[in-house]
Amino acid sequence: MLEELKLEAYEANLQLPKQGLINLTFGNASAIDRDRGIFAIKPSGVEYEQLRPSDMVLVDLEGRIVEGDLKPSSDTPTHRRLYLGFTRIGGIVHTHSLQATAFAQAGRPIPCFGTTHADYFNGEVPVTRKMRAVEIASAYEWETGGVILERFRGVNPADLPAVLVNRRAPFCWGINADHAVEVAVAIECCAKMALLSLQIDPHLSPIESELLEKHFRRKHGPEAYYGQTKHS
Amino acid sequence: MLEELKLEAYEANLQLPKQGLINLTFGNASAIDRDRGIFAIKPSGVEYEQLRPSDMVLVDLEGRIVEGDLKPSSDTPTHRRLYLGFTRIGGIVHTHSLQATAFAQAGRPIPCFGTTHADYFNGEVPVTRKMRAVEIASAYEWETGGVILERFRGVNPADLPAVLVNRRAPFCWGINADHAVEVAVAIECCAKMALLSLQIDPHLSPIESELLEKHFRRKHGPEAYYGQTKHS
Amino acid sequence: MLEELKLEAYEANLQLPKQGLINLTFGNASAIDRDRGIFAIKPSGVEYEQLRPSDMVLVDLEGRIVEGDLKPSSDTPTHRRLYLGFTRIGGIVHTHSLQATAFAQAGRPIPCFGTTHADYFNGEVPVTRKMRAVEIASAYEWETGGVILERFRGVNPADLPAVLVNRRAPFCWGINADHAVEVAVAIECCAKMALLSLQIDPHLSPIESELLEKHFRRKHGPEAYYGQTKHS
Amino acid sequence: MLEELKLEAYEANLQLPKQGLINLTFGNASAIDRDRGIFAIKPSGVEYEQLRPSDMVLVDLEGRIVEGDLKPSSDTPTHRRLYLGFTRIGGIVHTHSLQATAFAQAGRPIPCFGTTHADYFNGEVPVTRKMRAVEIASAYEWETGGVILERFRGVNPADLPAVLVNRRAPFCWGINADHAVEVAVAIECCAKMALLSLQIDPHLSPIESELLEKHFRRKHGPEAYYGQTKHS
Repeated sequence: MLEELKLEAYEANLQLPKQGLINLTFGNASAIDRDRGIFAIKPSGVEYEQLRPSDMVLVDLEGRIVEGDLKPSSDTPTHRRLYLGFTRIGGIVHTHSLQATAFAQAGRPIPCFGTTHADYFNGEVPVTRKMRAVEIASAYEWETGGVILERFRGVNPADLPAVLVNRRAPFCWGINADHAVEVAVAIECCAKMALLSLQIDPHLSPIESELLEKHFRRKHGPEAYYGQTKHS
Repeated sequence: MLEELKLEAYEANLQLPKQGLINLTFGNASAIDRDRGIFAIKPSGVEYEQLRPSDMVLVDLEGRIVEGDLKPSSDTPTHRRLYLGFTRIGGIVHTHSLQATAFAQAGRPIPCFGTTHADYFNGEVPVTRKMRAVEIASAYEWETGGVILERFRGVNPADLPAVLVNRRAPFCWGINADHAVEVAVAIECCAKMALLSLQIDPHLSPIESELLEKHFRRKHGPEAYYGQTKHS
Repeated sequence: MLEELKLEAYEANLQLPKQGLINLTFGNASAIDRDRGIFAIKPSGVEYEQLRPSDMVLVDLEGRIVEGDLKPSSDTPTHRRLYLGFTRIGGIVHTHSLQATAFAQAGRPIPCFGTTHADYFNGEVPVTRKMRAVEIASAYEWETGGVILERFRGVNPADLPAVLVNRRAPFCWGINADHAVEVAVAIECCAKMALLSLQIDPHLSPIESELLEKHFRRKHGPEAYYGQTKHS
Repeated sequence: MLEELKLEAYEANLQLPKQGLINLTFGNASAIDRDRGIFAIKPSGVEYEQLRPSDMVLVDLEGRIVEGDLKPSSDTPTHRRLYLGFTRIGGIVHTHSLQATAFAQAGRPIPCFGTTHADYFNGEVPVTRKMRAVEIASAYEWETGGVILERFRGVNPADLPAVLVNRRAPFCWGINADHAVEVAVAIECCAKMALLSLQIDPHLSPIESELLEKHFRRKHGPEAYYGQTKHS
């Protein structure tokens, strides 16, 4: 069932190594069918070269495996909690892309220094608080989703379609899995540019708010005029 | 009409991802027919893998679309203003290449530390002033061209075939679109080398003027003796 | 004889340039048959493009060449000493991958700043002491193995499947040669991320012990739940 | 005439972009026939993709073009002077590879921090003095060879098969053009590793002399035991 959904998740997963975002078996992508409340996700620890669309595991929003012979990604509870908390997103991508992960490891947000960043994120990419020992010891992956949602209280996930999990790596989302991959590419570019800009000027201030707003709104929301059609 | 011009613009656009200057749909290239006063430019937000020569949009120097089913790049007014202000250039390339963009984000020119840079640019690559809120809020892309021209008052654009738009990214030009791509490759190399040189010696002084002049003139102008034929 | 073992070593060697871990003829991989006490290793100084499975040299644990027309890698005595000292490993990989080697050259362990590292290494990747002039002048490659074993006294090599040889480069191991390649990829990623994290925060503290333990045990040992099957 | 020599030079030139050492038309390789006193060198400013073996220009040690329809590389007088001064080398490669060029631009030698470097260079890679205005204004490329030879007075070019020309970029040599390419790859690796090591420890001291000597002699000279055959 849901062959198209599995294909969407499969293709998003294949993009991760192709775009240079992934080494080894790190990372995963999923896509959700909101009408059915079912998402398709990468199986755990399978090499990208060996993945087939039929390997995608179907999971419902209660966390039950609906279809699939393989174990789903160990991060499945994080995806599930994000789909529950961010009710308008259609796809999630988790990578260990090097530059963005460096910021996550340091527990620092990715500052917005220029318009490349502003084209995708309406401000700095936030970082979660560190997880508590009790959260790590219990339902770790579910709690990971919890600290993300906690960080996004009062924030529109369409304005900031990514987060850095402290000590860990980025999670990105979008209207579908393909869009989430695009955000994952953008966050890695922006992280690298931010680090290079800080090398040039360690005291660089963030982008001016008018320019941030201009670039974000050029691509997003009702006044967007970039591209042939609109994403959001 | 103008099939050759569209092909020139198309091929320059394809070079951008091939040369590693571009991720996603960032960036654009255009080429102008000076006799007709018409330039061909990439459509807005189309993926490079899907571009065809016939997708190039023809625009005249008053900004009217002469031919094309797609919306032209949102940066079209910037290209137009540069073609109007720099009357001898034949092609323009805009990228978000990472190292050059890092300098643009930091609002710093790319210093000339060696002969690789001097082979292409007769001095440091300049950066525009920051744009004012009123410029951002009105005809943003047209005003972007304006701050570039302002920065080049009294400067020969053939001596410095690129600029960093503050907080944004490089714009490059040349006698044709292919030449502008070459400059875009060169600026990224030079930006990376400059950053690495600054890591080795944070107080490094610019190249000596005799050596700068020697290398620039070896490749450009009436005394050039590099290559089988001359660019300019 | 031992065609499968030679094939395993051959394929691990081929992975080294493919994964970007190797330039020129640097580096080598080997695989051991524990029942026979024989390992297959890359010949010395042969280009990766020209390697064939039959070029692998078979060596026993006393250091005698059992089969092969070519000289084995000059690092063969190091591999041999590691197979003797770490009795449960099945494969060894030595690379000069750039980021990990930078730490080795500086004589610094690779700190564990995040979960990517914790997925592979149960703590920082250790570095050997510098070798003494007398060790360098005598059986250099055998003594190289010696300083590694000295550093691992009281340490389980399955917990830390890699080491940096001071002034030199990493050696990695695993349950087989393929697993050792995976560790070699991981150490290069982790070294790069660690360096980038230190750029962002030069005083960054190591990962919290609960999170380190959680991630390492998610993938290794009796309570592992990552992947379809377990490595160790 | 000399088809094999032209082929050797051609193939060395093709290696430069393939090994990631070159962008655009930067760089050049040559190979010499010592019996005839003629070398084959890349034509000036021709794109690597369009090169053919027959494009190589034959030049004698007095600087006369012996064969070829194209202008030889503008750096031909530098190659010629090196062939005259270093009478046992068989090939020369000049690149603008980014990391090595960064050291050249900063006028700093590449320090030897580890055994990867010691495998190729018996000490730090030296840098020439800056060229004087009068040298730049007169026979610039010939004088470039001159400052290299000046720097190598009393130094065996087989011990240090590369130099950084101040403000410019590396020149590398070897027993033939293929060997010079190998040195050009090695110098770029070593420059990158040195810079990364300096990031980890800005006060890092050079490699201990015993280890330097051991690694260099393992690969070079009468006591070499690395590889199936010896280079030098």
